[in-house]
Amino acid sequence: MKPVKVGVLGLGTVGGGTVNVLKRNAAEIARRAGREIIITRASAKDLNKVRICDTEGIILSADPMDIINDPEIEIVVELIGGGGVVKDWILKALENGKHVVTANKSLIALHGNEIFAKASEKGVIVAFEAAVAGGIPIIKAIREGLAGNEIEWLAGIINGTGNFILTEMRDKGRDFDDVLAEAQALGYAEADPTFDVEGIDAAHKLTILASIAFGIPLQFDKIYTEGISRITRLDVEYAERLGYRIKHLGIARKTPEGIELRVHPTLIPERRLIANVNGVMNAIVVRGDAVGNTLYYGPGAGAEPTASAVVADIVDVARALTSDPENRVPHLAFQAESLSDILVLHPDNFKTSYYLRLCTEDKPGVLADVTRILADHNISIEAIIQKEALPDETLIPIILLTQITLEKEMNAAIAAIEALDTVNGKVNRIRLETLENK
Amino acid sequence: MKPVKVGVLGLGTVGGGTVNVLKRNAAEIARRAGREIIITRASAKDLNKVRICDTEGIILSADPMDIINDPEIEIVVELIGGGGVVKDWILKALENGKHVVTANKSLIALHGNEIFAKASEKGVIVAFEAAVAGGIPIIKAIREGLAGNEIEWLAGIINGTGNFILTEMRDKGRDFDDVLAEAQALGYAEADPTFDVEGIDAAHKLTILASIAFGIPLQFDKIYTEGISRITRLDVEYAERLGYRIKHLGIARKTPEGIELRVHPTLIPERRLIANVNGVMNAIVVRGDAVGNTLYYGPGAGAEPTASAVVADIVDVARALTSDPENRVPHLAFQAESLSDILVLHPDNFKTSYYLRLCTEDKPGVLADVTRILADHNISIEAIIQKEALPDETLIPIILLTQITLEKEMNAAIAAIEALDTVNGKVNRIRLETLENK
Repeated sequence: MKPVKVGVLGLGTVGGGTVNVLKRNAAEIARRAGREIIITRASAKDLNKVRICDTEGIILSADPMDIINDPEIEIVVELIGGGGVVKDWILKALENGKHVVTANKSLIALHGNEIFAKASEKGVIVAFEAAVAGGIPIIKAIREGLAGNEIEWLAGIINGTGNFILTEMRDKGRDFDDVLAEAQALGYAEADPTFDVEGIDAAHKLTILASIAFGIPLQFDKIYTEGISRITRLDVEYAERLGYRIKHLGIARKTPEGIELRVHPTLIPERRLIANVNGVMNAIVVRGDAVGNTLYYGPGAGAEPTASAVVADIVDVARALTSDPENRVPHLAFQAESLSDILVLHPDNFKTSYYLRLCTEDKPGVLADVTRILADHNISIEAIIQKEALPDETLIPIILLTQITLEKEMNAAIAAIEALDTVNGKVNRIRLETLENK
Repeated sequence: MKPVKVGVLGLGTVGGGTVNVLKRNAAEIARRAGREIIITRASAKDLNKVRICDTEGIILSADPMDIINDPEIEIVVELIGGGGVVKDWILKALENGKHVVTANKSLIALHGNEIFAKASEKGVIVAFEAAVAGGIPIIKAIREGLAGNEIEWLAGIINGTGNFILTEMRDKGRDFDDVLAEAQALGYAEADPTFDVEGIDAAHKLTILASIAFGIPLQFDKIYTEGISRITRLDVEYAERLGYRIKHLGIARKTPEGIELRVHPTLIPERRLIANVNGVMNAIVVRGDAVGNTLYYGPGAGAEPTASAVVADIVDVARALTSDPENRVPHLAFQAESLSDILVLHPDNFKTSYYLRLCTEDKPGVLADVTRILADHNISIEAIIQKEALPDETLIPIILLTQITLEKEMNAAIAAIEALDTVNGKVNRIRLETLENK
């Protein structure tokens, strides 16, 4: 079969990794794909920069339009990232009848509906495996591998930086700020770490996962997002003593009332496999009604792991070049005309268990007041730990685990507890999920 | 699009589960596949038997040929299992131009080369996701999701019964025979447990995984297979104290000398995720040169988990009905004409580390003799534990961990150790793999 010509936009970490993988494994990839896959052109902002990849045989341009307008190129691989003009380039490539492969999670999460509509109109494919969880083929697993299931929920560690920080806090008893500074020094976290530690990056990925799991449009603005910066060393330690680990999870769950979409720190039982996913690694648990719980684990970032997903998409697209568009796997797993407008729930209506930590004065009746307030809001208690006051301290920490409750009841209960004279400061609240096989 | 008509051969556990999943999730599946998937016919040996599935609307036959010869049926789903006449039925279905979906691991492992050749000749697909690791989409992950990688090795817990037995031995300090009897009572293990505990079932699955990972023909007869019946409670306990768990792994590894294909009990560091896969669950670690280590976890058997894989295959085939055969994903991941005849190594040439347990008399110089023999065979020692003799016992157990060594050197060393007057009985040898991220 005739070789497939590919143009790459962007030769940074992922772009360079993709060139390297496609060159190094060219023979192995051709043995699989049944044809050669050749990068004929690439664009980069600065043509004179030293790169991680060898660009011999590739025509370089500063202008991505040189690639988008090349009639020989069938697949445009967008590895620049971000929005604005990048979105315009992708739309222009689709307009020109090119298939597009991208690792751009924010672009897909925020503008995917528009991009997929344009692709469908032109009968071409937009592939985005690399946009979620790097090298883990999670899009393919959910969209094709679990196609026989009604997906009930999924929960994932989908931001490596956040998981590195929480792992270090647990393993070494370190504080959040201290580990964050190290993550920045190691290059895991950006100078502005908001995207990672406040859960925005995870929310982009969860937007995509929820859409392909439930057949709903991409709805980034409906995701409840909470970061890990409020988690203290004490919380990590108390969770541990109770048999839990704290992980920053993206959770999508179908309930009879609607869909919960939420990113937040979560206590999970330490015996769950995902509780043991450490460092910068990612993992996603997907529960289907037929298959039960499955888990997918691997590196969520990095040049070659991300390139692995990009190249797999290129091979898929190469195989589908001559297929009828209607017989292809739909972009969002479900046929575009079958997407569902099922309600995405307001956080008030989330149902989950909680870990609560409060500081109280060492007086009789404090615990009675707290438990009375919880009972008044129909919140059942699973466990209570009341610690002794430290020397020179007059305040006593109380840790509570609750059963599943409605979030608005919990918000009201927390407000009432914080209003007690005997309770000092804020209640630290972390959600708890058992992720059971049911 | 017009509905796809499917015929099912066999209405036992997996067949019944497949009917149930296809009926229950019909709407969800149609939203994904863009067309209805309808089971119009099914065959079963005993038509009057009470079944786990509702067969309303399905024409039942005692003779599979009624389905294989029905011109309306496009996809034949074989869920009878085993060989002999089942193989003939599959070949006849292919001959009739039907696509085939099967969960039959022994048939694919033993006769897949012939079956795929026939399918290619007729331009039809044989899909077999359900043949390995039940509901885990591992075939798809390796064949498509990691298509950009050179696969370096894979290691999997691919027999649930064996993993259940090893998990119980560890968790409850029970003996092999005792747990096996329980597994049989629970229905996990067959009355004749040889297939599971001696590793034959795992070897069937490893045959398939190795083929799609490395692009080699199916070569079941070249797999080294060792069961778990020689593992004792003591081994499990000593492994634990050294920081390891014992798992029954199927391992395929590419080395500069050739390919290692082996199924055997294996010590793995307890901090590896796969060491924490318990009970009847399956998991496979796949290492690719670009992606690094990825892991796939889920239920490896059962009616609906297996049906999940079968239905995913049916959806895939439905989408590929009108595609050019040359643009489809090749049966064994690599183009049939590109399969490699790379050497599969004889066990003598395997390279791995070892755990050795021996019983010695309580005399000076025993340890010196043993370590001298190992040194003479170029075997380096990683750790030694010499236990005290139990009361009323004169024999002392010695446990050794070695560094990586050539298997034929180890065999010679063990023979020499067993010939020592001061060593009692056999040396219990278990291979050890670190499964590191390199």
